[in-house]
Amino acid sequence: MKVVKIWRNAMRGVVAGVVVSISAAVCISPATAAEPAKSQAPAKPAVPPKPLTIQAQGSFFVGGHDIHSNTLSTAAGRGADGTITVDQMYVSYQLPLHARRFPITLIHGCCLTAKSWETTPDGRMGWQDYFVRKGFSTYTIDQVARGRSAFDPSAINSVKMGKTAPDTLSALFAAGHEEAWTVFRFGPEYPKPYANLQFPLQAQAELWKQLVPDWYAALPSPNPTVPNLSALAQQLNGTVLMSHSQGGVYPFQAAAISTKGIAGIVAIEPTVCPSPTGDLSPYTKMPILVVYGDNVEIAPRWAPRLEKCRAFIDAVAKAGGHATLVELPQVGFKGNSHMVMQDKNSLQVADWLLDWIDRNIEKKS
Amino acid sequence: MKVVKIWRNAMRGVVAGVVVSISAAVCISPATAAEPAKSQAPAKPAVPPKPLTIQAQGSFFVGGHDIHSNTLSTAAGRGADGTITVDQMYVSYQLPLHARRFPITLIHGCCLTAKSWETTPDGRMGWQDYFVRKGFSTYTIDQVARGRSAFDPSAINSVKMGKTAPDTLSALFAAGHEEAWTVFRFGPEYPKPYANLQFPLQAQAELWKQLVPDWYAALPSPNPTVPNLSALAQQLNGTVLMSHSQGGVYPFQAAAISTKGIAGIVAIEPTVCPSPTGDLSPYTKMPILVVYGDNVEIAPRWAPRLEKCRAFIDAVAKAGGHATLVELPQVGFKGNSHMVMQDKNSLQVADWLLDWIDRNIEKKS
Repeated sequence: MKVVKIWRNAMRGVVAGVVVSISAAVCISPATAAEPAKSQAPAKPAVPPKPLTIQAQGSFFVGGHDIHSNTLSTAAGRGADGTITVDQMYVSYQLPLHARRFPITLIHGCCLTAKSWETTPDGRMGWQDYFVRKGFSTYTIDQVARGRSAFDPSAINSVKMGKTAPDTLSALFAAGHEEAWTVFRFGPEYPKPYANLQFPLQAQAELWKQLVPDWYAALPSPNPTVPNLSALAQQLNGTVLMSHSQGGVYPFQAAAISTKGIAGIVAIEPTVCPSPTGDLSPYTKMPILVVYGDNVEIAPRWAPRLEKCRAFIDAVAKAGGHATLVELPQVGFKGNSHMVMQDKNSLQVADWLLDWIDRNIEKKS
Repeated sequence: MKVVKIWRNAMRGVVAGVVVSISAAVCISPATAAEPAKSQAPAKPAVPPKPLTIQAQGSFFVGGHDIHSNTLSTAAGRGADGTITVDQMYVSYQLPLHARRFPITLIHGCCLTAKSWETTPDGRMGWQDYFVRKGFSTYTIDQVARGRSAFDPSAINSVKMGKTAPDTLSALFAAGHEEAWTVFRFGPEYPKPYANLQFPLQAQAELWKQLVPDWYAALPSPNPTVPNLSALAQQLNGTVLMSHSQGGVYPFQAAAISTKGIAGIVAIEPTVCPSPTGDLSPYTKMPILVVYGDNVEIAPRWAPRLEKCRAFIDAVAKAGGHATLVELPQVGFKGNSHMVMQDKNSLQVADWLLDWIDRNIEKKS
């Protein structure tokens, strides 16, 4: 009963969004009144799942190197000169008892962190938890310069100190709710949804909280996350790289560095795929699945991406690779948004994906 | 055998630090060569622990509100105008089977994220995992504007767009290894350690990777994390707030908002405590423990902090509160640094803390 009450309160909070206008020049965020903020999501599941027994869990970093900077700080009492470590990638893991052969490495997309794969905005179980319960070890990353993987503050402080010009600041962006609406394919325009949409829109406020500012446009290519993923795959001696959106292409870029340790690739709604006319040999070395949701062909941002990825997958198959592109409606799932792992049918899609991995990667290894 | 080999390789990586000098004007980080970065920490524990059965796990946000900004983006193809959500606090949780009465809420310190409480730099079990194994539910936060809790990029983009002056940029800093050495009380000066130091210095490179840039000096007071903690404590209907360093004072600030839901406070090495001459009534309502490690009195940065917190604790006790300050050497632990939860004797200290919580909070509730 108590859990149900918490849940109801949480859902009430979710739909009570308040928009406050502030000047863009305000730093960080406006002053918060010193009273309790309203908590808006449940602190435990509405319905307790079955107990889960794990063998081990923890976290570590992959990659990273030291740089010297003389603009580390513009805060009082803190030295500006020193050494920091950058380009490392945070990884957390959970290993179930009697884990299956290949762990799944989860790679989030643009403006997001590994939170994407955890509890959904409406409080249901996320894919990371679900995969472990299905016997797969998971390794979940925060992309370099985002979440728990540090960015380098030197350029910002350098501008504040007057050492460099404002236009040397890195390209940075946060996705506004209105733009994210079409990017996440909730509907044709904000705030109009597609009729068959599977995303739990009543909890959209909880998704907006997941969004973080993103420096990826300013990072070198390939993103430092890519060589880190390659190193992780080799360290794990075999893993399925499962990626999403802006991170969608990273497993392919990692395979171009080395195919070692990449047991298979599952790219969920990648924004870009490798060129179909490039060197395809790395992609013939492991099973590949590219997945898109619904309403793709009618979304101007997404239709060309789908077509380009289809051309890539067709070219890999023609070159002898085991590569497949699936639009979810083709296999019976209707109405999926870009945020497949958070849609109302997310666990049904997960079952389908895990079955594909079982048949095409684990059984064929 | 294989595990031992991975571990040895990891430790070899840890001690092979390379310092590269770059201009402070370089954005984010220098280009990374497109080859695998060397992974430097184990992808699983060297010695598998006993299996752990949990009832549930997941994550959610507390707090947050919407703002409108017209400087959301300086990245190509992304709109600058829209609504974003700020001041929310990311929380991840794990509930063991048959959990004890009060969850422990873990609040990290400056320039760090919740990673502080996970696997130690040298690959041993972190306090979050250990506490769950000892029967305590844990709620672990990333402070507002850090880690998985978004910051507002508007002010940075506004300066890059030429709309506002460089000096409107928020105070921001990253802790350099050299400065962090004395802040974390590894020794009297970089790179000289204290003779009895418990921190696993051979793995220091893995700690440096945990450090992230910190906006806290630019945030309002109290930090938006504080009302969020108050809301979380009330939502949990009772929790022990365990804080560290710059986050050390947050439980006290949360208690000043409301004592509801705060079953007890354990502040590990707080940088500041409330004034002993202020309103002490909130602090007489729950058991309070303030803990410092070793070598505090000989550290110029730390000795005054210890004295001020001692004055506060003495005043609370005099006002009728149940408040205690313990220097770990007084109870038999020698050589602890500021990073107590990562020191070589971290689990022994954890046992002592959990016993204190059991006797002073759980048994007295």
